[in-house]
Amino acid sequence: MRIPESIRKFADFFSKLPGIGPRQAIRLGFYLAESGEGARAEAEKAIESLADIKICTRCFYVHDTKGELCEICSDSSRDQSTVAIIEKETDLMSLENIGKFKGVYLVIGDIRKKSILEPGQKLRLQSLKARLKELPPSTSSGQSGGKAKEIIIAVNPTSVGNINAAAIADELKGSTEKITRLGIGIPSGGEIEFADAETLGGAMERRT
Amino acid sequence: MRIPESIRKFADFFSKLPGIGPRQAIRLGFYLAESGEGARAEAEKAIESLADIKICTRCFYVHDTKGELCEICSDSSRDQSTVAIIEKETDLMSLENIGKFKGVYLVIGDIRKKSILEPGQKLRLQSLKARLKELPPSTSSGQSGGKAKEIIIAVNPTSVGNINAAAIADELKGSTEKITRLGIGIPSGGEIEFADAETLGGAMERRT
Repeated sequence: MRIPESIRKFADFFSKLPGIGPRQAIRLGFYLAESGEGARAEAEKAIESLADIKICTRCFYVHDTKGELCEICSDSSRDQSTVAIIEKETDLMSLENIGKFKGVYLVIGDIRKKSILEPGQKLRLQSLKARLKELPPSTSSGQSGGKAKEIIIAVNPTSVGNINAAAIADELKGSTEKITRLGIGIPSGGEIEFADAETLGGAMERRT
Repeated sequence: MRIPESIRKFADFFSKLPGIGPRQAIRLGFYLAESGEGARAEAEKAIESLADIKICTRCFYVHDTKGELCEICSDSSRDQSTVAIIEKETDLMSLENIGKFKGVYLVIGDIRKKSILEPGQKLRLQSLKARLKELPPSTSSGQSGGKAKEIIIAVNPTSVGNINAAAIADELKGSTEKITRLGIGIPSGGEIEFADAETLGGAMERRT
């Protein structure tokens, strides 16, 4: 079946975006082609408005606050010596929403299936290491400074995530007292019957 | 967690598109915000180019051929008296890809959960009825003309789809010799264990 050329072009671009497969991209193309000039203008405006956005020079989170730093990095009540390393902004949002984490973040960007730590990601880790070196000694925890208290490598516990987590840990091992990852276990509301061996093993180990 | 305003606006629009949920829309917003001016310009261009597209005046399929009719409607080898009614263009593509259907189509557009046959969809069915009335008598099938040989209501066999299929059948009952729907059964490669009662019942009835 021949697809109209402009839909093909639209789909070629949009299927490269995260979470949009080739079929969905075609579907979206047909939908926007049908919805008329107004909807398309609105879509273009929505994309254009993203130009207002800045990237935090410290944690690389996308933000629109006045300064160079994002809300979290410029919040003096956050513990600068505890750092969660996350893949993407939406993971940061998920972690912020539970309200349990009082440290700061480092967004390293999408982990690709084909490579371990891309050059851009290594640069972000370098900038984290440089920032950790500047940490003052903490009187409360008796720390000598220049190191993080804890780095939580909060990437997905998939095989690709695990490989990259190991590489990140390797990169940062001299810069922190402790390196942790999120706990593996049965998701709340999930069923033991459908959990794979690794999940169930993690749940057993971390039983409470 | 506060989301930057322009990402919120972007997500508001894009989460209204088919198959994009609020979370994915936010994710896309962050992604396009991060990917820089070039990627955003490309996205806007891809959307703009959809303006070239026409809608077939007979079957309402989106196309970019020269005439008023799409490739299928203007193909004289297709049987104009067998009509498949489908929801969306991608369904048409799926049916065309199997290469077994030699009739023509009517795209009625997305079936909504909240209503049965929207005004626009009724208009499309009216235009189909008008077109069927013009059908010449067929000597091979001994038909008197003015009616379709068969109308296949190829909407999804979901509860909403079934309600709408019944409404479509009702609307078209005077305009066709036969009204059919796609067969329910175990999907190829699927497992009997996970099939629900209706699927399994359909598979039993249609056993070969």
